[in-house]
Amino acid sequence: MKIDGVPYRTIWLDPDGWTVCLIDQTFLPHAFTIARTRTADAIAQAIVTMQVRGAPLIGIAGAYGLALALRQDPGDDALNAAAHQLIATRPTGANLRWAVEKVRSGVSALPPKQRAAEAYRLAGLLADEDVAINRAIGEHGLPLFRALASRKPPGERLNVLTHCNAGWLATVDWGTALAPLFFAHDSGLPLHIWVDETRPRNQGAALTAWELARHGIPHTVVADNAGGHLMQHGQVDAVIVGTDRVTADGDVANKIGTYLKALAARDNGVPFYVALPSPTIDWTRHDGVREIPVEERSAHEVTHLRGVDAGGQWREIRLTPAESPAANPSFDVTPARLVTALITERGVCPASRAGLRSLFDTSATRG
Amino acid sequence: MKIDGVPYRTIWLDPDGWTVCLIDQTFLPHAFTIARTRTADAIAQAIVTMQVRGAPLIGIAGAYGLALALRQDPGDDALNAAAHQLIATRPTGANLRWAVEKVRSGVSALPPKQRAAEAYRLAGLLADEDVAINRAIGEHGLPLFRALASRKPPGERLNVLTHCNAGWLATVDWGTALAPLFFAHDSGLPLHIWVDETRPRNQGAALTAWELARHGIPHTVVADNAGGHLMQHGQVDAVIVGTDRVTADGDVANKIGTYLKALAARDNGVPFYVALPSPTIDWTRHDGVREIPVEERSAHEVTHLRGVDAGGQWREIRLTPAESPAANPSFDVTPARLVTALITERGVCPASRAGLRSLFDTSATRG
Repeated sequence: MKIDGVPYRTIWLDPDGWTVCLIDQTFLPHAFTIARTRTADAIAQAIVTMQVRGAPLIGIAGAYGLALALRQDPGDDALNAAAHQLIATRPTGANLRWAVEKVRSGVSALPPKQRAAEAYRLAGLLADEDVAINRAIGEHGLPLFRALASRKPPGERLNVLTHCNAGWLATVDWGTALAPLFFAHDSGLPLHIWVDETRPRNQGAALTAWELARHGIPHTVVADNAGGHLMQHGQVDAVIVGTDRVTADGDVANKIGTYLKALAARDNGVPFYVALPSPTIDWTRHDGVREIPVEERSAHEVTHLRGVDAGGQWREIRLTPAESPAANPSFDVTPARLVTALITERGVCPASRAGLRSLFDTSATRG
Repeated sequence: MKIDGVPYRTIWLDPDGWTVCLIDQTFLPHAFTIARTRTADAIAQAIVTMQVRGAPLIGIAGAYGLALALRQDPGDDALNAAAHQLIATRPTGANLRWAVEKVRSGVSALPPKQRAAEAYRLAGLLADEDVAINRAIGEHGLPLFRALASRKPPGERLNVLTHCNAGWLATVDWGTALAPLFFAHDSGLPLHIWVDETRPRNQGAALTAWELARHGIPHTVVADNAGGHLMQHGQVDAVIVGTDRVTADGDVANKIGTYLKALAARDNGVPFYVALPSPTIDWTRHDGVREIPVEERSAHEVTHLRGVDAGGQWREIRLTPAESPAANPSFDVTPARLVTALITERGVCPASRAGLRSLFDTSATRG
């Protein structure tokens, strides 16, 4: 996508051929900053601190992290240690393990001196594949929103609510949940997005709002608490979110709070869509609430918040009494029964084992 | 309740006999500040800026505001203008209109020179009545939590989630939703409270956490998004909230986001209680979603946030891109079907017309 007319991806190789460049998302929306990473440690740190975030992008960052590790030490021990370190940075998303394992298995049979180059090649392929997948998600999702728009009175815009950031900043390009909305807007469909703030890290208020503003899509930021009220009053025509892991039975792990919006959508007859690239599917898990590990992040993310003051200075403020503890579960699981449909790169399907199997031959896609 | 050993109410008369003193809640939890108000305008401003908030406390502040107005000008025009001004400050809560009308009707038949003194007397009676009502809510609610606690394995504490602040800061003293919890904790019941942050004004993170910390009740602040996940994992035994207006049919208007927690409670078989003093009941409304006006507050409350930095300096930071608009509906309505029971000063009843009528004779209570 373009920023001030310049096309960007969220992750790319420097012209030196090996330094990994990232848009540092911790400075958005207030500053556009590029981080240059040269070690697997730096990539792991970038994932932990959420300089890069979003399940698909984390996967690609992990793949490049392995390439950086192999450049320093291409031996088996270093390969396995780096893979382990990278996978451990974020436990909930499926794409990270998938991408890192993809690179590890792709290089482990090679002589050590060939491994780094092959890892860079594979990471680049995965990045390109992510872009192609997300474009396909956009194309497959577009008809759903066209159909909803066709039922609106003439002149009324389609109101879509999204939670967290599943836009291009969460991927290499295009995004997952936002891809169909970029397509819809670009095709002239009158669109307005309700952007959930997404506490505690405010990916909606900071990242989704920034993406939509850059692209010129009408949008309004709301507190996470507001979605149910908006749905009760007919102000939401559809909800669409991304996901960090989908079980074989269609349960959806996504940013904390997603489940609450799915409940409200069900209670108000609003369609609830989940957009996902197939590497997000975890064919080994079934009951998402019981089986998907939910990352508990630092309480500091709840008790403090960072932003800029009126003078443009970065400030961190405390929100809670100093003696009050906080908890920060970062994901929740939306049961498949609350999901209207899954939007994948191969098409749209019900959130169920049968639905996923109708699109994906599990033996072929999990090589 | 006590602050550092000193008993306080949230609103009281200065020893001068007429200045109205308030705990200024906009400085909590970082500073304990008392505001001294001497005009109806100042009271109206204190309500608008949320120096005082919470439906029961707003009602009492409105009553004192009318007394202040009559002290300046006891004529009919001034009485009616001040009543109108005060009632208009917050459209959603029922208590404000109730309390202001109570004072207006109590003084309007009197000669002007007697009105101010009578208004002060009536406001004082309403304040005392609020304290008595809330104590009764605590007593009636306590057995519900005792019963839930008795079903827990020995040694396990009872986990209760609350949204916004319905503690003593929302009333003159004791609180509504927190009153049974203060009673439960004081009686030795092992208790832990999940405190919803309550964006955008953070009444949970700032006020409820502060109250619970002052009183020594174990608690943990969580993002509003977390409650559904906690319920899915059996970490919430009950939800209790206050309310700004309850319809004759039992629909409950409360802080934005309450409805989402009620949906999650229902989906997970968690009891959802609403504590209310009877002045919160609006016997003239029935369908809360359609009939209760929901206040839309400033977008600035969503886009900016105030707190203290590490040096103790107050700072306001921006959270969103400068070009992104925000919306701020401040209340939502939880349909009666999602409410397990209403806890009132006269006892516990189903959230229904029959339930409310079983406790309140409407002709007698709405004089």
